[in-house]
Amino acid sequence: MPDSAINLRDKLGRFAEHWSPRVVAEMNDYQFKLVKIQGGFVWHSHAETDEVFIVLDGAMTLEFRDRTIALAAGEMYVVPKGVEHRPAAARECCVMLVEPRGVVNTGDAAGVVAAPNDVWV
Amino acid sequence: MPDSAINLRDKLGRFAEHWSPRVVAEMNDYQFKLVKIQGGFVWHSHAETDEVFIVLDGAMTLEFRDRTIALAAGEMYVVPKGVEHRPAAARECCVMLVEPRGVVNTGDAAGVVAAPNDVWV
Repeated sequence: MPDSAINLRDKLGRFAEHWSPRVVAEMNDYQFKLVKIQGGFVWHSHAETDEVFIVLDGAMTLEFRDRTIALAAGEMYVVPKGVEHRPAAARECCVMLVEPRGVVNTGDAAGVVAAPNDVWV
Repeated sequence: MPDSAINLRDKLGRFAEHWSPRVVAEMNDYQFKLVKIQGGFVWHSHAETDEVFIVLDGAMTLEFRDRTIALAAGEMYVVPKGVEHRPAAARECCVMLVEPRGVVNTGDAAGVVAAPNDVWV
């Protein structure tokens, strides 16, 4: 057991890359990841799991084929499994993701390179 | 799928009771719950699951038999399954819990009344 709490702002200060999730904690077989996003990501879905977005700083959108959800700091959204989505942010936005261990950030998207998985910060 | 994001501050404004978790979202078979705590809770453990504490506002401690972890807003901690713990807060503290659906807040503690489970806000 760690001797101190996980400070999210401190962890965010330790990396700069966009679209490259860093694991900060595990609960059972789930991981909590921090990611900095800017610009638009690739359309993708995760066939086997829901995915949680919690915005820590800034603002972003989750585009779906039939709607766009706006999220600001202090807001969260659950992307249902199998549903195509595209995260985007006009300016840098810091997000916490919650999903099972082993989920890659590009899901089922073809022809794109996923970020390395299971990288801790 | 909801038409808008879940705003945590808005949800916190909708209840006042202490030690009475409210579900705000589900991801697979896990729930995200908000809880307001003040004072000291009962010693307990959860034999079957880890439990995540994310402090949204204020400060709290997680007492274990061999150490005490301090958490402030923007910090999180994962209580391993089976480990006795006692949450406490000198002043009101707002926390997000993440744990499997069905977990009761008093765990294995005997002789205490658990808060109603699976109450949404």
